[in-house]
Amino acid sequence: MPFQVGSEVGRLRQVIVHRPGVELRALGPLNKERYLFDELLWVERAQEEHDLFVSVLQDRGVVVHHLEDLLRETLAVEEARTDILRRSLDERYVGPLAAGWLMDMFQDMDDAALVGHLLGGMTRAELASRPDCPGSVVLEHLSPHEHILEPLPNHLFARDASTWVGSKVALNSMHRNVRRRETLHYDAIYRHHPLFAGKVGFWSPRKGEGPATVEGGDILVPNPLTVIVGLSERTNARGVERLAERLLESGDVQRVVVLELPRARAFMHLDTVLTMVDRETFVRYGELPPLRSWTITSGVAGHGEQRLVVESHAPGDMGHVIAEALGLTGVRFLAADQDAHGAAREQWDDGCNVLALEPGVVVAYARNVVTNAHLRSQGVEVIEVPGSELGRGRGGPRCMSCPVERDPLD
Amino acid sequence: MPFQVGSEVGRLRQVIVHRPGVELRALGPLNKERYLFDELLWVERAQEEHDLFVSVLQDRGVVVHHLEDLLRETLAVEEARTDILRRSLDERYVGPLAAGWLMDMFQDMDDAALVGHLLGGMTRAELASRPDCPGSVVLEHLSPHEHILEPLPNHLFARDASTWVGSKVALNSMHRNVRRRETLHYDAIYRHHPLFAGKVGFWSPRKGEGPATVEGGDILVPNPLTVIVGLSERTNARGVERLAERLLESGDVQRVVVLELPRARAFMHLDTVLTMVDRETFVRYGELPPLRSWTITSGVAGHGEQRLVVESHAPGDMGHVIAEALGLTGVRFLAADQDAHGAAREQWDDGCNVLALEPGVVVAYARNVVTNAHLRSQGVEVIEVPGSELGRGRGGPRCMSCPVERDPLD
Amino acid sequence: MPFQVGSEVGRLRQVIVHRPGVELRALGPLNKERYLFDELLWVERAQEEHDLFVSVLQDRGVVVHHLEDLLRETLAVEEARTDILRRSLDERYVGPLAAGWLMDMFQDMDDAALVGHLLGGMTRAELASRPDCPGSVVLEHLSPHEHILEPLPNHLFARDASTWVGSKVALNSMHRNVRRRETLHYDAIYRHHPLFAGKVGFWSPRKGEGPATVEGGDILVPNPLTVIVGLSERTNARGVERLAERLLESGDVQRVVVLELPRARAFMHLDTVLTMVDRETFVRYGELPPLRSWTITSGVAGHGEQRLVVESHAPGDMGHVIAEALGLTGVRFLAADQDAHGAAREQWDDGCNVLALEPGVVVAYARNVVTNAHLRSQGVEVIEVPGSELGRGRGGPRCMSCPVERDPLD
Amino acid sequence: MPFQVGSEVGRLRQVIVHRPGVELRALGPLNKERYLFDELLWVERAQEEHDLFVSVLQDRGVVVHHLEDLLRETLAVEEARTDILRRSLDERYVGPLAAGWLMDMFQDMDDAALVGHLLGGMTRAELASRPDCPGSVVLEHLSPHEHILEPLPNHLFARDASTWVGSKVALNSMHRNVRRRETLHYDAIYRHHPLFAGKVGFWSPRKGEGPATVEGGDILVPNPLTVIVGLSERTNARGVERLAERLLESGDVQRVVVLELPRARAFMHLDTVLTMVDRETFVRYGELPPLRSWTITSGVAGHGEQRLVVESHAPGDMGHVIAEALGLTGVRFLAADQDAHGAAREQWDDGCNVLALEPGVVVAYARNVVTNAHLRSQGVEVIEVPGSELGRGRGGPRCMSCPVERDPLD
Repeated sequence: MPFQVGSEVGRLRQVIVHRPGVELRALGPLNKERYLFDELLWVERAQEEHDLFVSVLQDRGVVVHHLEDLLRETLAVEEARTDILRRSLDERYVGPLAAGWLMDMFQDMDDAALVGHLLGGMTRAELASRPDCPGSVVLEHLSPHEHILEPLPNHLFARDASTWVGSKVALNSMHRNVRRRETLHYDAIYRHHPLFAGKVGFWSPRKGEGPATVEGGDILVPNPLTVIVGLSERTNARGVERLAERLLESGDVQRVVVLELPRARAFMHLDTVLTMVDRETFVRYGELPPLRSWTITSGVAGHGEQRLVVESHAPGDMGHVIAEALGLTGVRFLAADQDAHGAAREQWDDGCNVLALEPGVVVAYARNVVTNAHLRSQGVEVIEVPGSELGRGRGGPRCMSCPVERDPLD
Repeated sequence: MPFQVGSEVGRLRQVIVHRPGVELRALGPLNKERYLFDELLWVERAQEEHDLFVSVLQDRGVVVHHLEDLLRETLAVEEARTDILRRSLDERYVGPLAAGWLMDMFQDMDDAALVGHLLGGMTRAELASRPDCPGSVVLEHLSPHEHILEPLPNHLFARDASTWVGSKVALNSMHRNVRRRETLHYDAIYRHHPLFAGKVGFWSPRKGEGPATVEGGDILVPNPLTVIVGLSERTNARGVERLAERLLESGDVQRVVVLELPRARAFMHLDTVLTMVDRETFVRYGELPPLRSWTITSGVAGHGEQRLVVESHAPGDMGHVIAEALGLTGVRFLAADQDAHGAAREQWDDGCNVLALEPGVVVAYARNVVTNAHLRSQGVEVIEVPGSELGRGRGGPRCMSCPVERDPLD
Repeated sequence: MPFQVGSEVGRLRQVIVHRPGVELRALGPLNKERYLFDELLWVERAQEEHDLFVSVLQDRGVVVHHLEDLLRETLAVEEARTDILRRSLDERYVGPLAAGWLMDMFQDMDDAALVGHLLGGMTRAELASRPDCPGSVVLEHLSPHEHILEPLPNHLFARDASTWVGSKVALNSMHRNVRRRETLHYDAIYRHHPLFAGKVGFWSPRKGEGPATVEGGDILVPNPLTVIVGLSERTNARGVERLAERLLESGDVQRVVVLELPRARAFMHLDTVLTMVDRETFVRYGELPPLRSWTITSGVAGHGEQRLVVESHAPGDMGHVIAEALGLTGVRFLAADQDAHGAAREQWDDGCNVLALEPGVVVAYARNVVTNAHLRSQGVEVIEVPGSELGRGRGGPRCMSCPVERDPLD
Repeated sequence: MPFQVGSEVGRLRQVIVHRPGVELRALGPLNKERYLFDELLWVERAQEEHDLFVSVLQDRGVVVHHLEDLLRETLAVEEARTDILRRSLDERYVGPLAAGWLMDMFQDMDDAALVGHLLGGMTRAELASRPDCPGSVVLEHLSPHEHILEPLPNHLFARDASTWVGSKVALNSMHRNVRRRETLHYDAIYRHHPLFAGKVGFWSPRKGEGPATVEGGDILVPNPLTVIVGLSERTNARGVERLAERLLESGDVQRVVVLELPRARAFMHLDTVLTMVDRETFVRYGELPPLRSWTITSGVAGHGEQRLVVESHAPGDMGHVIAEALGLTGVRFLAADQDAHGAAREQWDDGCNVLALEPGVVVAYARNVVTNAHLRSQGVEVIEVPGSELGRGRGGPRCMSCPVERDPLD
């Protein structure tokens, strides 16, 4: 079974990433917040930085799959192509008057052009040049630079839309509608791409979870029996419960630990404040307060029926709860000693969002000088990559990677 | 066939309204914007004002149905009760861990208590007093004054969640999630309440329109063959197209006119700026610019297939487009002559949101002194009702009423 | 000495108020936030409510001065007229190109017309009709409905711009620039109106305090030796220190108690959460947490020099600190027992913002039913006035009154 | 006369810049908007980028003065030191209780340490360690990471706080209070630093212009007789009129052209959308609409008195107005041909904010690939510097430079 994620820090073998492209050129000063970006990226330089990131992974023996390639190859499978287009061009988004015409137009494109639009979207101006464009209130109501098919600039953060736990993958229901279609792409890839087709099990129901949202940046899988989930801006409690139910009912997972993040934009995902770097070691944002938590396990009700049991823990027990879930007597949290503004600056710049390649070896943005020095002083090997442009999207090496094969720890 | 809406200004015979109650006490300074209220209402006084509004309707021979009564009586039908609860307590909103327990608790309530909670919601604090409350991350993540079942203060605006066009009703997909459950209530009432059960046809599909939204405040039905829809903050173009498709495919409706409102909070719905007051007369916000519009009709494609035809019109043609849709040679727009601030103030206070009881007779808020005087000077009879409290919710007499029987014009 | 304020709850003898007028008609949906209003008022109804408020005061023997009258009579004094115009039309606000022409135009008006514009402002559209209007970038940059002289709708809250402590008055530096000119009016009235001229001492320097702001709603004067000041959204710490320095250096005041309010819009001024209703009794917002405080007194430094001494107190000591400042062994805080949303609703609607007429007798808005009932149950006489319109400005009876003569307690 | 700015594009000889330093480390995710920054800078990298910018200038023979050096050397002059401290520690900002103690503390520092705090500010936490810190409500009200003396991160944009027109300098009144103290520093430098003392004339009054604001980024000086000013978010019409009055009354300047920018955050200053690159050539943001304008000149009134004359021009005349002011028959506007999103992206990244070193030679950020290529294709020499970090502050090479000597064009 080639695809399997059995830990957070075991040897990383295969990963999906997305090289930034056309979808980031669709961002401008006026629409960037709509697409969850605080800043604009210089796309060419961001590509160079991303290429360096990929080289680092490859140099360490990781097989890197590019989303753009996987998607293009998936579109060659007719069933997949139709499925993606049908769901992307749902009448409830594009309206019934233009839906059929749009479907035909996209069906007629070659695979590369189609990938370009699935990623980069399509504006009304691009459509207006087509002479046979039908009468449509939806289309005519758009201004020329608005999109009938929206761009997906957050595909850069390959971590979020799907998450492997053991040998199955969860297709995540994203918090914000502008990220909805990222999941459609992963769904089609895992079901139809020759690399994956027939080899993948799914944690999530086909029709999706709707308002019960979970994003991959909030999920840590320290070992095959344990999942840690952050309750965040993006991952809500009902999403966590729904995921926990499926994981625990399978019997493959034995416990789900839920950590309640403070409600603040900077703490978008759990992995922006807490990430594993070694077997018993986490990098932690220094100003993060202790977090309230819950442990969900599978129990047996009085009448023999299987049910979920929730145990709640005070913030002060956080370290203990995590250690116990990992089957350890204790865990280490690393946080550099620096003033509050400095710590906040490095958290903002993804100082905690490192990607482990194997126990004690992580990829990190070079700009977080203090955090990286501290990790090294504690015995962690830190491989630095530039993030002047990439980091403007508020995501670091962990956010930008979707492991599809990682060894468990021995 | 008792229920039928054949015009905007023909004699009004039966209407659904909602007297403000517990759901408005759930609003406070910190959560009012979340529930789309700019201000808090003094509930007792709002009830007095609403009672006066109802008296005015009854004095003119209108049969007034109270949503609260209809809903309570509907809950006595077991199938309806189960359906409402099942959809209100969808696991994707309340999480799987507490869903069953919540379902049991609400099922055990008497009808009046259950209506109170369906309207007024339920906070975590109310639940916490129940000793058998199950472990649930969803519940424990809430602060004591947050709601596991949200209140529905916008039920006051009975116009929006459902709309009668001719002899069938559209169950609307609301723009904001906090209004979603209003539609469930109307759905159950029309299907199961003894007054309606078996006598109602539906324009909308059972499973709902999701992101294709339409709200009743944007729909005018000037005659049985014509529907005018506003493209607004709340009603989007794909919602309009989906509704138009159903109306036109039936053959009952022959044309849908779509008016494109400016994008501004004050122009929330079409009926906040343009409302019919007589056979060929509208009250119009004086500062409203001419609106771009479209006429959608049913045509025949080359190969004999039925299809929708969209004709677009420049803003300057607005009057002509509406007149033609009404089969008239011209229409009259009434707008008092006052300075821009004054006009904006009365628009803000629902000066245009009047409810016609018969041709040339409308109910209006007393506070819009200039608009009301102007209507009278133009031969319209204006029955004034107070709105110091009711009007704080940004809705007037038209918003607060859902006609279920209104005569066509001869 | 006729003008003197020696307590918070001693018999009220003379007060300045402002009947809402033209300045409130200048508000519309788009500019109301700029002028600090959450909602628009129906001006005629607000005037009726205000007239009732004034009647209540007069019925209890209070002499009521209307700001509009005082200002008009002050403008008859040439020096005052010139001073107000010169400061209102400061070149740094209206630009040098139009300043002289504006000065001439206003100088030529009769007093009543001038008052109308000083309160209600003047738009560019009003100016544009004058044929001799000079070339001015400032004027031409304005859109027709923008103001070259801004309206002063917050004059309704007569409490804020000036504050009497004992026999002298402080002319306050307002937090927001849109309220700056209110203080100019009080300055001119106290210096030049026949009622006051020559009889008034001043706590504040002529040239103003600039960014060191204090507003009257934050100042309580429980007895002639003690001043309590709230540190709020509107009154900043440097403003408090500057005021305390002047009060204490005079020797007339012996201590200034500073209460640190939570940083929230709803707690705009101290008197929106804490107001005296009797000799040792306060009405207090039920959800107000205990407040950190400081006592500032006058001490002597090592080398004999007079200096201010600051003593800081923990939140838990709040009651004790206030009692001691009042020379009492304890104080009573009244807060009705109601749920958090209800308490917040009544605080929002100025439930705590009552005006004492004599010990144990207060004027309050009728809408705060629970708070008023609680005050009565505790022996306070509550005279209710309507506030459906007045209260939309977020200010109650205390905010709307500037006592200029109130007896000390015996 | 060594200091003189006689053109926009004549040979640049001397310039003041500020290398980013401690003041940027004071920014964090929560306070950056308060200091007008959209993003955080990696300070070390920003310093490297700035050093490269300085090298480019020096390589072309420009003498570069560092603000930090100038300020430190100015502080050695006792009168200057006292003046800066007195105005920086104004009681109306720091309160009277701590003002004297703060004054003494800063007076006792060595010059380098003092510069560090004048630029980087001082938090309450830094003060708390001093045992003799006096009781002060101002200080105790601050949280540990709030500043009693605020940092000045916008010093990076040396263009704004002072502007040379001919042989005199205008000390600008900044729009936002967080930039107020930048002007104090330039005031002291020009009056007291050995390089400037006694050699500088001033356009502005000593006491400042208060709410009549002008910032240097809005001022272009194409030749000694002409000044072009942008009416922007930061430079208001009264500020423009006040500046024009002084310039024209002197007789040195003959006309001031005022351009009215659209009201949008992205168009913060005129030089973010329109900058001179050659004798008759401007780089212009491609999506900038034509701008309404005014020409202010000095005229003679009927009775022989000198007065200003304002002539207004329609947007369509913009090119003609500018050409005439420059004494040319026409001007060239360069804007690359690219789609609206691309143009907006490069405008956002300071594509128009280039610094001319001599006619036809400019320094620009490398990231604006399309704009730079277009300038080159039109014969402009473009020297590129990196701006991945510097540009996060929303300012380019022109913003970061304050020319104090530039040749007029022949």
